[in-house]
Amino acid sequence: MAKSTSNKVSVPGFLANGVSAGIKGGNQKDLGLIFSTVPAKVAAMLTKNTFRAAPVLIDAERIKRGIARAIITNSGCANAATGKEGMEDALAVSAAAAKQLKIPEEHLLVCSTGVIGKRLPLKKIESGIGKLVKGLNEFGIEDAESAMMTTDKYPKISIRKGIVGARDITICGIAKGAGMIEPNMATLLTYVMTDALIDTKALNTVFHQVIDSTFNSISVDGCMSTNDTAIILANGLAANNPLERAQARLQRFREMLTDVLAELSQAVVKDGEGATKLITVVVEGAKSKSDARRVAYSVANSNLVKTAFFGEDPNWGRIIAAIGASGIPLEREKIGLSIANVNVFSQDTPAVVTLSKLKDVFKGGNIEVRISLGGGDKSYAVYTSDLSYDYVKINADYST
Amino acid sequence: MAKSTSNKVSVPGFLANGVSAGIKGGNQKDLGLIFSTVPAKVAAMLTKNTFRAAPVLIDAERIKRGIARAIITNSGCANAATGKEGMEDALAVSAAAAKQLKIPEEHLLVCSTGVIGKRLPLKKIESGIGKLVKGLNEFGIEDAESAMMTTDKYPKISIRKGIVGARDITICGIAKGAGMIEPNMATLLTYVMTDALIDTKALNTVFHQVIDSTFNSISVDGCMSTNDTAIILANGLAANNPLERAQARLQRFREMLTDVLAELSQAVVKDGEGATKLITVVVEGAKSKSDARRVAYSVANSNLVKTAFFGEDPNWGRIIAAIGASGIPLEREKIGLSIANVNVFSQDTPAVVTLSKLKDVFKGGNIEVRISLGGGDKSYAVYTSDLSYDYVKINADYST
Repeated sequence: MAKSTSNKVSVPGFLANGVSAGIKGGNQKDLGLIFSTVPAKVAAMLTKNTFRAAPVLIDAERIKRGIARAIITNSGCANAATGKEGMEDALAVSAAAAKQLKIPEEHLLVCSTGVIGKRLPLKKIESGIGKLVKGLNEFGIEDAESAMMTTDKYPKISIRKGIVGARDITICGIAKGAGMIEPNMATLLTYVMTDALIDTKALNTVFHQVIDSTFNSISVDGCMSTNDTAIILANGLAANNPLERAQARLQRFREMLTDVLAELSQAVVKDGEGATKLITVVVEGAKSKSDARRVAYSVANSNLVKTAFFGEDPNWGRIIAAIGASGIPLEREKIGLSIANVNVFSQDTPAVVTLSKLKDVFKGGNIEVRISLGGGDKSYAVYTSDLSYDYVKINADYST
Repeated sequence: MAKSTSNKVSVPGFLANGVSAGIKGGNQKDLGLIFSTVPAKVAAMLTKNTFRAAPVLIDAERIKRGIARAIITNSGCANAATGKEGMEDALAVSAAAAKQLKIPEEHLLVCSTGVIGKRLPLKKIESGIGKLVKGLNEFGIEDAESAMMTTDKYPKISIRKGIVGARDITICGIAKGAGMIEPNMATLLTYVMTDALIDTKALNTVFHQVIDSTFNSISVDGCMSTNDTAIILANGLAANNPLERAQARLQRFREMLTDVLAELSQAVVKDGEGATKLITVVVEGAKSKSDARRVAYSVANSNLVKTAFFGEDPNWGRIIAAIGASGIPLEREKIGLSIANVNVFSQDTPAVVTLSKLKDVFKGGNIEVRISLGGGDKSYAVYTSDLSYDYVKINADYST
């Protein structure tokens, strides 16, 4: 799903690096940096959690200016629910990194991921920043990505090149995220680097639209984090004909960005904690998009549906129960359910399907659940994973 | 939690029985009956799921009359999502049982629990009804309860005796339910038998109030079933001074009923699929009861919180994240969190607590999570369980 990464991944005008600062222990990379050689336009979406982490609060202010140059990220500690000290820690990281990078602090964004409620190991980070900055290089994106992994099993990098506004442009995204994945800003950390020349307003609009149809349409466990952050930096070095809102050429940029973020968001679900399957829940025929979304999430977040998929137990009645539990007024006679193109239920009656066929359907690694509500023309698709022993294992002993 | 049951459990004027009709295989009891020797007042709460099972649709009509005498229940098959045939099957069971019992069909309630989407094995049930009715006896409540168990590990029976309206009355409740437990009619099957003499309107009001504070305040997995049913039958044989609405003596009845249903609903959570702990989430200081409830369920239904409790991993930051993800406007400076009376977080800052103390807190079998929002005087309490390997195991291979 996520591209196999080679050392050749790079975006014109971007340097990156990732090092071990000893936050996670061993020699694991845990401190990463992305740096644009020139000031870049920035847009972002941040978690709506009341307990936004200290770095998220800082970024929320800085992003308002529309300009940024660098993102420093640590894993191993979320610096959330850490009070005033946590804010002071985040500002100290920011000051140290900006100084080394010789940029205004306001142009630096700070991100953290890991355990909530623990103080940052500030000394370790401060002493790691030197080698982090010194090692910045054109092909360091993969290292920066590694440094932000927590329970992720594999790196998530996606890159597209294409002609936009009469010039070759590159869009490259990286993401981390394996648990605490929830629709309402289900991003954890996602950074996109592009050399496209684009107006701030256009960047903001397109980024929000694309995030809505990609990272905001996935779920692993229905848990919204304190640190979810999606950032795009556009440094304009491609010198293409500028992209502005309502321009036809913006469409091509939107498509490329959608490709990148769809690939990354599906990689996050596939790498969902303990996940063994990618399940796509498509709801169509709804009166409104929000109805379609609510039904899709009622199914996608059902532990009973997710465990049935894990066990490859063709217990489709749980999907019917989850549809009916969505709280949306529905006409049961009009509802249809098919799984992997096999009609399972319609006109309030189970279809005639053999058990062996149903078992086969549940055995797939990539399963589409299609639900038609028969009440309108709106639709919504959500990507989710199954619920396995390993999800419990990973999460029963995470902080200690 | 649930009373250890003896063969002495009985309620004046009620007969009961439970037999094996071969639905579940082996000699497991799977067909149960409760019968009042005289017509009883009835009140009920039924699932709000769009895909209410056939028996629930039948009961919804019959309960409107306010009078019932018997409840027949099968386990092993929910008779939900079974279309017209499912309705015909349920009516056939009803006709056969009413005939044997020599009562009008409208006085019989029908309940089913088990796998969704499978037809009832009608012949087995019809041929089991003979011995079921023949064996009705004063001390058969325990057998009737056994017959409705699915993944339940132990029976759930609660009984209270007391003086109400100048006479001794008895209230006895039985419940089944181990998974698919969700607030919005989180009852699965619960039947209450009482010999109290009570007006239909008063019965209805009190029953709904008490269910709201007991069965509608628990969660195992946030999944609302197609078959949830709570029924109370009051046969009046105690000949107490009649209980009517707005009467002082109704309060004593309410208290006894609350005791019975609180005990049963907590037993359901403790026996939650794979549960190893009972977790009480109390939210106070909310602007409204519905705000308090929403925060409580955001925490109680968080897979990350539930796995942390299972693993006895003192990852309290996940509780903070779940509070912040509730979608309610909150002032983070005013929020306080304590676990088992240990202050963990307040004034947007973690409390100074040693890790060993926190670990002890998470080791309890019965843990209270107390959250104060500092924004009002409304509160709500929810009972939930942890999320274990066994939840996944039980649910990954249920239907086949």
